[in-house]
Amino acid sequence: MTLEVQKILEGDQLSGARLISLLEKRDRRGIEMLQAIYPRTGQAFLVGITGPAGTGKSTLVSRMIGHLRGRGLRVGVVAVDPSSPFSRGALLGDRIRMQGHETDPGVFIRSLASRGETGGVSRAAREAALVMDAMGHEVVLTETLGVGQGDVAVARCAHTTAVVCIPGMGDEVQAMKAGLLEIADVFVVNKADREGAEELAHLLETDVVMSRPPQGEWRPPVVRTVALRNEGVDRLVDTLFEHRRHLESTGRLAQRMAGSEFHFFRQLVLEMAAEALLTDSAELARLRDDLGRRAIDPYAAAETFLKQRLLFKA
Amino acid sequence: MTLEVQKILEGDQLSGARLISLLEKRDRRGIEMLQAIYPRTGQAFLVGITGPAGTGKSTLVSRMIGHLRGRGLRVGVVAVDPSSPFSRGALLGDRIRMQGHETDPGVFIRSLASRGETGGVSRAAREAALVMDAMGHEVVLTETLGVGQGDVAVARCAHTTAVVCIPGMGDEVQAMKAGLLEIADVFVVNKADREGAEELAHLLETDVVMSRPPQGEWRPPVVRTVALRNEGVDRLVDTLFEHRRHLESTGRLAQRMAGSEFHFFRQLVLEMAAEALLTDSAELARLRDDLGRRAIDPYAAAETFLKQRLLFKA
Repeated sequence: MTLEVQKILEGDQLSGARLISLLEKRDRRGIEMLQAIYPRTGQAFLVGITGPAGTGKSTLVSRMIGHLRGRGLRVGVVAVDPSSPFSRGALLGDRIRMQGHETDPGVFIRSLASRGETGGVSRAAREAALVMDAMGHEVVLTETLGVGQGDVAVARCAHTTAVVCIPGMGDEVQAMKAGLLEIADVFVVNKADREGAEELAHLLETDVVMSRPPQGEWRPPVVRTVALRNEGVDRLVDTLFEHRRHLESTGRLAQRMAGSEFHFFRQLVLEMAAEALLTDSAELARLRDDLGRRAIDPYAAAETFLKQRLLFKA
Repeated sequence: MTLEVQKILEGDQLSGARLISLLEKRDRRGIEMLQAIYPRTGQAFLVGITGPAGTGKSTLVSRMIGHLRGRGLRVGVVAVDPSSPFSRGALLGDRIRMQGHETDPGVFIRSLASRGETGGVSRAAREAALVMDAMGHEVVLTETLGVGQGDVAVARCAHTTAVVCIPGMGDEVQAMKAGLLEIADVFVVNKADREGAEELAHLLETDVVMSRPPQGEWRPPVVRTVALRNEGVDRLVDTLFEHRRHLESTGRLAQRMAGSEFHFFRQLVLEMAAEALLTDSAELARLRDDLGRRAIDPYAAAETFLKQRLLFKA
């Protein structure tokens, strides 16, 4: 084991940050270090916090950090949301939301550039969480933007996912019903002191949660918070741990983790396949020309191309 | 050529809709039909309309349809946004936004289920646009939600992409600057009668547009609209065609189309590879178990797995 790997396992923040940067750049050494620390992962409680911009996720995460620290837990934060103050660095108004956590040695916050393909982001987020896990953080919070397709991928890495909504989002919630149900283990109605909070909570409790086919015994509870005033956040943290205990007691945690690791394995296979198959070549340049002139159709081209490169095994 | 293919090429809406449904289900017959019509595609002007929920994209699209129809053009619309009234069907309040286009034989609107992986959505959107193209629509508008990673993929199929913002989105625009620049050929400040419209337009015109490295001669113009009152929409349509002419006159249209077809080819190769490599098997089930127990690390597992299946050719 190299010294750098040792330092990561001891929780050294600089070494952890360096590894996450290497991984973001898809540096080969980063992958090797991740493989070295991998056996020490699988301990942290991985929590996803997702919801559209403007729902106050970052303030909520900041408050959650406070409560988790109060319980003596070390907390890692992966911010994927480009509009997050964690991502932008602590700007003027954001200092309030950071609550001084940036100087607490028990808190490790990293933001990820979210440009590029969705697959890349969800991979980088998962890898950052693995690093924080290996560093000894008992809880890793991953903050992601929106309730779109990409978030499903990020949610797949989490043990427990909280979806944050605010009053006035009723229409959006209705439209997103299916997507929400796919990922939410807990719903948060933040800014619950605003008008329309009860309607939204009611909508979530009835229409959304009740329409979910019972899986095990868990029905996503709806937690009301006012993150700015630190209200309801302790209960939210309790609820997340309740869900974790539920997963453990029903054996679904092991199932979820296996699913998550397998999903990641598939993602890696496809990434490596893309690299092996689609790295620039004279043949690909020719194909690009032919495709541009519409001299061949892309379906036939893809099929022929692949047939020459895959060992189809039964 | 089958009768069904013939009918699509003649613009029959029922046949077109049937094909799009087959393609959404990834039905083999759908792909074959798409291959049959493919030589007749490449004629339509493909326009992407993207922006967060609540920016009035659907109303804008509806108004654009009106203006395009007024110019005697047949219009196809692909709605990927799950919150779009086009997607939800014409609900009560949405009838206004539909403007009766649903009964105009020169307008063909299809919404796509946007659940599942981003790749699947962008593929389905592209294929639906191809069908509309082959049906003889001179313009195909694709409406997508948000300015996230998935939208970059959808934008890649369009010749011209308009990004819709509304007053009050300054922070979001700042945070998304890089992503916006990647996809916007035209910016739309919709609801331009609201307070803050000039600030937003100014922000886009200075900070965002001016920070863009000059590519050819085009700098994304900022068009102000009030879609609800049908203001500025004609100018928006003019601007889109201006961009189209710019692409044609500089040779960048051919370049963009080649890039887009090649991107699609890559996507197909990876999808087919995924199917060939990762279809359920006893070996994969064993791997899933091993991964779940963390008995192997996913990186090593993926590498080994792939090595046995790929013919690496130089």
